[in-house]
Amino acid sequence: MKFQPVKGTRDFYPEQMAVRNYIVNGWKAASVRSGFVEYDGPIFEYLAMYQAKSGQEIAQQLFSLTDRGGRELAIRPEITPTLARMVNEKINSLPRPIKWFSVPRLCRAENTQKGRLREFFQWNIDVIGVDDVIADADVIFTSIDYLRSTGLTAGDIQAKISSRKLLAAVLVELGISGESLDAIYVLLDKKTKLPAETFDAMLLEKIGDGGVVEKIKKLMEITAVEQIADIVRPGPAVQQGLDEVSRLFVILSNMGIDNYCRFDMSIVRGLAYYTGVVFEVHDVTGRLRAICGGGRYDNLLKDFGGPAISATGMGMGDCVLEILLEEKGLLKERIAANKIDYFVACADERLFGRAVETACKLRTLGRIAEFAYKPGNLAKQLKQADSMKCRFCVIIGRELEECGKLIVKNMADGSQSQISMEEFFRGND
Amino acid sequence: MKFQPVKGTRDFYPEQMAVRNYIVNGWKAASVRSGFVEYDGPIFEYLAMYQAKSGQEIAQQLFSLTDRGGRELAIRPEITPTLARMVNEKINSLPRPIKWFSVPRLCRAENTQKGRLREFFQWNIDVIGVDDVIADADVIFTSIDYLRSTGLTAGDIQAKISSRKLLAAVLVELGISGESLDAIYVLLDKKTKLPAETFDAMLLEKIGDGGVVEKIKKLMEITAVEQIADIVRPGPAVQQGLDEVSRLFVILSNMGIDNYCRFDMSIVRGLAYYTGVVFEVHDVTGRLRAICGGGRYDNLLKDFGGPAISATGMGMGDCVLEILLEEKGLLKERIAANKIDYFVACADERLFGRAVETACKLRTLGRIAEFAYKPGNLAKQLKQADSMKCRFCVIIGRELEECGKLIVKNMADGSQSQISMEEFFRGND
Repeated sequence: MKFQPVKGTRDFYPEQMAVRNYIVNGWKAASVRSGFVEYDGPIFEYLAMYQAKSGQEIAQQLFSLTDRGGRELAIRPEITPTLARMVNEKINSLPRPIKWFSVPRLCRAENTQKGRLREFFQWNIDVIGVDDVIADADVIFTSIDYLRSTGLTAGDIQAKISSRKLLAAVLVELGISGESLDAIYVLLDKKTKLPAETFDAMLLEKIGDGGVVEKIKKLMEITAVEQIADIVRPGPAVQQGLDEVSRLFVILSNMGIDNYCRFDMSIVRGLAYYTGVVFEVHDVTGRLRAICGGGRYDNLLKDFGGPAISATGMGMGDCVLEILLEEKGLLKERIAANKIDYFVACADERLFGRAVETACKLRTLGRIAEFAYKPGNLAKQLKQADSMKCRFCVIIGRELEECGKLIVKNMADGSQSQISMEEFFRGND
Repeated sequence: MKFQPVKGTRDFYPEQMAVRNYIVNGWKAASVRSGFVEYDGPIFEYLAMYQAKSGQEIAQQLFSLTDRGGRELAIRPEITPTLARMVNEKINSLPRPIKWFSVPRLCRAENTQKGRLREFFQWNIDVIGVDDVIADADVIFTSIDYLRSTGLTAGDIQAKISSRKLLAAVLVELGISGESLDAIYVLLDKKTKLPAETFDAMLLEKIGDGGVVEKIKKLMEITAVEQIADIVRPGPAVQQGLDEVSRLFVILSNMGIDNYCRFDMSIVRGLAYYTGVVFEVHDVTGRLRAICGGGRYDNLLKDFGGPAISATGMGMGDCVLEILLEEKGLLKERIAANKIDYFVACADERLFGRAVETACKLRTLGRIAEFAYKPGNLAKQLKQADSMKCRFCVIIGRELEECGKLIVKNMADGSQSQISMEEFFRGND
């Protein structure tokens, strides 16, 4: 009986696992460098939790199940609801700011395509309890700091940054009612994914006024804060939004990542819950989906039964990132082969016990050590050591019986030397 | 609207996450030291795969679901079927021996109790393609090597080792038919979990012969290979089993872990698929469930549509292990607090940009650096640095304006010194 993996999932053979570990370990290291601490939740939660608060698109992509006790559950499609639940539970005892990160495995029953699978890993960082763009800047810095550490340059990727607060102020200034904003965000977020005529027609249908539609389309093309004044006369709300964005860019410059960042009003983000700064990192060619995205969400904790505490965060999946790193040639050179320090070969069956002892002593001392399960044929063992990319080969043979010495062969240059067992272990202690 | 986590699952707040990372990182390090390479599979697979081949108990504990395409799936309750599927798929291209490890998240819908949750993590190591006790010894060594690295001594834990092959040979010698062996294994495995009279009655019902029952009960108490001869006259099959076990113990002694290992015929393992060496590691008091268990399984790959290749492996969950480490006081002292290298405090609001710049430059250089989101109140910032257990506090204040210097305060002893920005970064490059 033969089985296949389920469509949209991946088998991580050692080679693929090394790539995943390289990515996940990089995420973790960048988080820790910036003072975030790790958390995680369960792989499944109550279905109602996701139906209530996830974006509509995500809610439609749930893998749901019913357990023996009749509980309706779902495999997590995102970790933000879990974060909100956990933070709310301990909100009074957690020191602020709460800077947390996680690298959850997530599942969404969506149509698989390039950069989109049904099971993936997503880096999440969030700063909770700070209602100031300094926290947004910290999140953007940490995202860029990671991407930069992989070898991606400002010529490869750009963070496009905008503000929902500013966008809302401009739209209201243009005469759009507060209630229709959410629906307009969803449409604006789809702009690049829809044919131009379709987008225009849908926008006109929503807005009604052709002049306003033209202004919104111009707004979406703005890449410098000063250009806002060409579209609306900034009232107090617009001015406040502008000031905030300007201050954000000053901080990003202090942080040394201004070359990776640009203002771009076309970044809207589909989810309803964003309320302030929003951003996405894209490859500069624009061929791929966003590498990551995030922003400020002021009402999330409250929506999950907690207090009204402001928060800002970012999510980055592994699929698009891996495609980009692979395309840029940044994976193979960076993923060091699984380096074995010592391969213990045994030239004489009678000495097998000594070979096993030597290998296990090395492991106990913290070295990565392997030995041949079958002693005797030295040529075969050296070949195995070579194929495993071992750094040194320790040969247990007649020299051990004759004068208590090992042969240590440097696999890189082929040189070898004799050394007493005692001296050898002293050097590895 | 307030939500709870699902029964039997865990929220990993930073403190709990640090414990989980400590355990999982230790598993990974021990695997790598012994030459195992990491793999992983999807979190869900086809339901039929588990129904077909998992132990009966596991198959009853599946979290199953049906996706939109009508596929019947299950969240993985163990990773061994995935391992068999993956290895079978590439059996001709994988260099032998195949030494793989994984640290999967697993879910089982079982009754929660001490050391048993519905979602847990399990370390798995397997050696595939070696039909010799040297591979079993390698698996046992790696398990003990990890446990020893946590600080557990031979006075805390013991690996109890037996052999299904030997047990089968003895039982057949006692007149039991080959077909009834599997059912007897299941019963023998339950011995310690059943009241003595219940076990005796059930065994008598299965065996029929009171004299044989007594002999089997004696057999279960054997802790030295020589004692087998007191129960049966060793025929060739029994002798072969005895020779194999003896050779295993010689290797374990070469490996330097003989003080952690003992022969114990009462170790049977419930699963039908074991065919050779079997073992469990227990805490010496016997109060807890087994910390880990494993053994040789000769037919698993074949059962999943592959070739008849022998394999041996081990599984260790995180729940019982954590309880034991906690009880022995081996968690708190070993889990270093999340050490922040530098906390950048800013004594003057006007210099906030320089403080942000300093912190982010440190991060870029690979240091763990945090800064105060709110500049100005130095006492408050120093308190924050202290509560975060930072090693050094860098103070950006008037010294920077006056003479281009930073103050670096050692948080351990309170000493502080002035240093130029340039020199400071040279020391951190």
